[in-house]
Amino acid sequence: MKLGELAAQLDLPFSGDADFQVNQLAPIESASATDLAFVVNASYRTALENSRAGAVIVPESLRQYASGNVFISPNPYVSYAKASWILKPDTKPAVGVHETASVSAQAQLEEGVSIGAFSSIGAGATIKKGACIGEHCIVSDGAYIGADTRLFARVSIGANCILGHSCRVQSGAVIGSEGFGYAFDNGWHAIHQTGRVTIGNSVHIGANTTIDRGAIDDTVISDGVILDNQIQIAHNVRIGKNTAIAGCVGIAGSTQIGAHCQIGGACNIVGHISICDGVVLNATSFVSQSITQAGRYSSGMPLQSIGQWRRSFVVLGQLEKLLKRVRKLEQ
Amino acid sequence: MKLGELAAQLDLPFSGDADFQVNQLAPIESASATDLAFVVNASYRTALENSRAGAVIVPESLRQYASGNVFISPNPYVSYAKASWILKPDTKPAVGVHETASVSAQAQLEEGVSIGAFSSIGAGATIKKGACIGEHCIVSDGAYIGADTRLFARVSIGANCILGHSCRVQSGAVIGSEGFGYAFDNGWHAIHQTGRVTIGNSVHIGANTTIDRGAIDDTVISDGVILDNQIQIAHNVRIGKNTAIAGCVGIAGSTQIGAHCQIGGACNIVGHISICDGVVLNATSFVSQSITQAGRYSSGMPLQSIGQWRRSFVVLGQLEKLLKRVRKLEQ
Amino acid sequence: MKLGELAAQLDLPFSGDADFQVNQLAPIESASATDLAFVVNASYRTALENSRAGAVIVPESLRQYASGNVFISPNPYVSYAKASWILKPDTKPAVGVHETASVSAQAQLEEGVSIGAFSSIGAGATIKKGACIGEHCIVSDGAYIGADTRLFARVSIGANCILGHSCRVQSGAVIGSEGFGYAFDNGWHAIHQTGRVTIGNSVHIGANTTIDRGAIDDTVISDGVILDNQIQIAHNVRIGKNTAIAGCVGIAGSTQIGAHCQIGGACNIVGHISICDGVVLNATSFVSQSITQAGRYSSGMPLQSIGQWRRSFVVLGQLEKLLKRVRKLEQ
Repeated sequence: MKLGELAAQLDLPFSGDADFQVNQLAPIESASATDLAFVVNASYRTALENSRAGAVIVPESLRQYASGNVFISPNPYVSYAKASWILKPDTKPAVGVHETASVSAQAQLEEGVSIGAFSSIGAGATIKKGACIGEHCIVSDGAYIGADTRLFARVSIGANCILGHSCRVQSGAVIGSEGFGYAFDNGWHAIHQTGRVTIGNSVHIGANTTIDRGAIDDTVISDGVILDNQIQIAHNVRIGKNTAIAGCVGIAGSTQIGAHCQIGGACNIVGHISICDGVVLNATSFVSQSITQAGRYSSGMPLQSIGQWRRSFVVLGQLEKLLKRVRKLEQ
Repeated sequence: MKLGELAAQLDLPFSGDADFQVNQLAPIESASATDLAFVVNASYRTALENSRAGAVIVPESLRQYASGNVFISPNPYVSYAKASWILKPDTKPAVGVHETASVSAQAQLEEGVSIGAFSSIGAGATIKKGACIGEHCIVSDGAYIGADTRLFARVSIGANCILGHSCRVQSGAVIGSEGFGYAFDNGWHAIHQTGRVTIGNSVHIGANTTIDRGAIDDTVISDGVILDNQIQIAHNVRIGKNTAIAGCVGIAGSTQIGAHCQIGGACNIVGHISICDGVVLNATSFVSQSITQAGRYSSGMPLQSIGQWRRSFVVLGQLEKLLKRVRKLEQ
Repeated sequence: MKLGELAAQLDLPFSGDADFQVNQLAPIESASATDLAFVVNASYRTALENSRAGAVIVPESLRQYASGNVFISPNPYVSYAKASWILKPDTKPAVGVHETASVSAQAQLEEGVSIGAFSSIGAGATIKKGACIGEHCIVSDGAYIGADTRLFARVSIGANCILGHSCRVQSGAVIGSEGFGYAFDNGWHAIHQTGRVTIGNSVHIGANTTIDRGAIDDTVISDGVILDNQIQIAHNVRIGKNTAIAGCVGIAGSTQIGAHCQIGGACNIVGHISICDGVVLNATSFVSQSITQAGRYSSGMPLQSIGQWRRSFVVLGQLEKLLKRVRKLEQ
């Protein structure tokens, strides 16, 4: 693509050769003469000055260090993200219902919809315009898929669950499985899970992530939330706007997570607590109590060589004794 | 539903207006005049006295604090669980084989069975009466599905695996994948996993949970076990009756878990150990040795603000030194 | 199978009754007269001497303690692994395309290929000779499946992803989902993930494991890697030859893992680090920094009874204070 055309599509000031062409994105350090790279701040100044990139996206503050073909952006990383779709447009399946798909006569499909091979659309389901249902998906009775939302292959949407517009769901995700609610009396008695999962607009959901339907009320994922792979979200969890959650996180039932949180990989959060807006959790954090103050938190353990760890392990098993010994010394 | 009819179905003593109708369940604090709520013990006495619930289920000991429409139950939570299915009956797919399903001529289907769209039933498979196989399921050759067991969409049952009656398996679960057993010699040589998974009666299995088949003997899940989402159970694990396991738990090969255990979310249990009956594990516990005494255990780390955690992290890396310093002081 | 024939197929020296038959494998302690067992070293000498196994595989060094039918092997465990496939051969589906499968006219299928019920093979996909695609698989456009590779039911292979020969992929695995890369500006902007997943030869992948495609470059799994169930591998991760990874492990983006590593269950490894060849990680280790020296490492916490743990938890929250108190005492 010619840089002039790219500048127009990105709506960014550009200086350089408008007829020059770039093919793809690359990191600033390894970019070649046909690549587009970006830098976000002054820590990359040397890399910028030494880069062989065919074109760069830089903030105004670094303009003086950039030469050749230069885009000026208030947020170079976002411009780079946008450029990634312009340089290599998304490949969407053809519009229409695949001949092998099974679509209920009581389902409602709007125009421009694509339904992949072997997908099954239930009675009362609604697929809004431009939505794209991959192969082997199940959209159960009464479910709603918003406009331009894309389900990749092998996604399950449970009965009556709702996805907003412009969502993107990776393979193997399960939306609307039954929550884990039981009473005990000689054996376990399941409580009928009659709530839904309601998912806002522009929500991304990773591969093999599971989101349980609510017990009575709904499980709620707000607009702009991004969820990585293999996340488990239990019944009646509520997640606020634009919160980002990395892979392998588990969130137990009825917990509320605020907006604009960032939850690192493999964190685990117990049920029935509340995490306020703007909380950042390092990978593998374990949250057992509500968090009421924005900020970054962690609980991960340091890695040690096996010999050192074995000795630490012994001390960890005797921390209370150690504290008492210190107390005694103090006396 | 009229309360008189509900009392008859729950087989509970009832006082109040038998013609009054409730629509759904709700927590005691937020229940409205058309909701049914419950309380289990005296800690909810004030909530009970202030509740606007249309009807309540209470233990005998709280009868004096309840007014209006009152059910007396020896186990109000279990009665509530039962009421959840009475007030909103389970929606089952129609009996019969969907026109798109692929059923082997050598499979045996009893009466009242439902086979969903695109499901595949192998040679020698048996589906007992009233069982319900959702869309996109694979019941492999020689597998056995007990009466009234329900598989939701996209469940895989491996060859020769057995599920008892009245089980319930959520989407994406994989029963009978090959266990992870290898010998090394320049490269890894897999050991043929020829055992099965045998699952008892009334077992519930969550979304995207995986249970490997045994190497020679079977992997065994006993009657009444309930498994949440994204649990991994390795080959030759044995789980005792009525044990409950929350989401994201991993159990390594050949480990035995007793009956009536409760394993919190994201616990991990190493292989070749034994956990006795009645063990309760807090969320994120790591079990590296056998447990021979019933009771509650934990190993989770406290969450700290990032600054405090960084300083703790340093100390955690020097615990042995710290112990030595205390010893030296003592001398 | 007669032991003489087994000896020929295993290509091992054998002494005993060549016409004797064994049916299956068993551990040395519990093996019966129709079982084949093995021992690897002298720690099993007593078990060997007391065993009722119909035949045993032993190293040269233990030959004198074995009686009856004896195979001598330089690596008894590997011989045992090989015997497991000889005694009970793999059951493969019939060659050919199942009548319900959907195969693009632009796909290329070599001879001896098996395509299961309801599988979908995209345009430009290549399935090499002897490969076996289970039921409900999706092999997307441009993907490549090497010779004799086997996908079990419900496996997704994303567009343009590559699997070498002799791979084995369990149900529910997702290869080639979109990596989790986003820029923030009022909302999250996804970066188009245009790389592939390239998987070498003889790689085994467990049930519900997910491997994201690279952002620009590929995610790379080298020859001989074995991956257990429910592993999450993020975009641009590279894993070296013959590395073995147990279940529930999470590896964040762009991390490089060396060859011949062994990663225990439920380990978590942060992004953008490097782990050298020959690293062994105990279960639940958390790796937050590069590892440059081969060896065994750990970071798991000891399990404690709930009372002891509560007191430890308090001390863990005050480690810095404890250190200061010791310092003060030292002064």
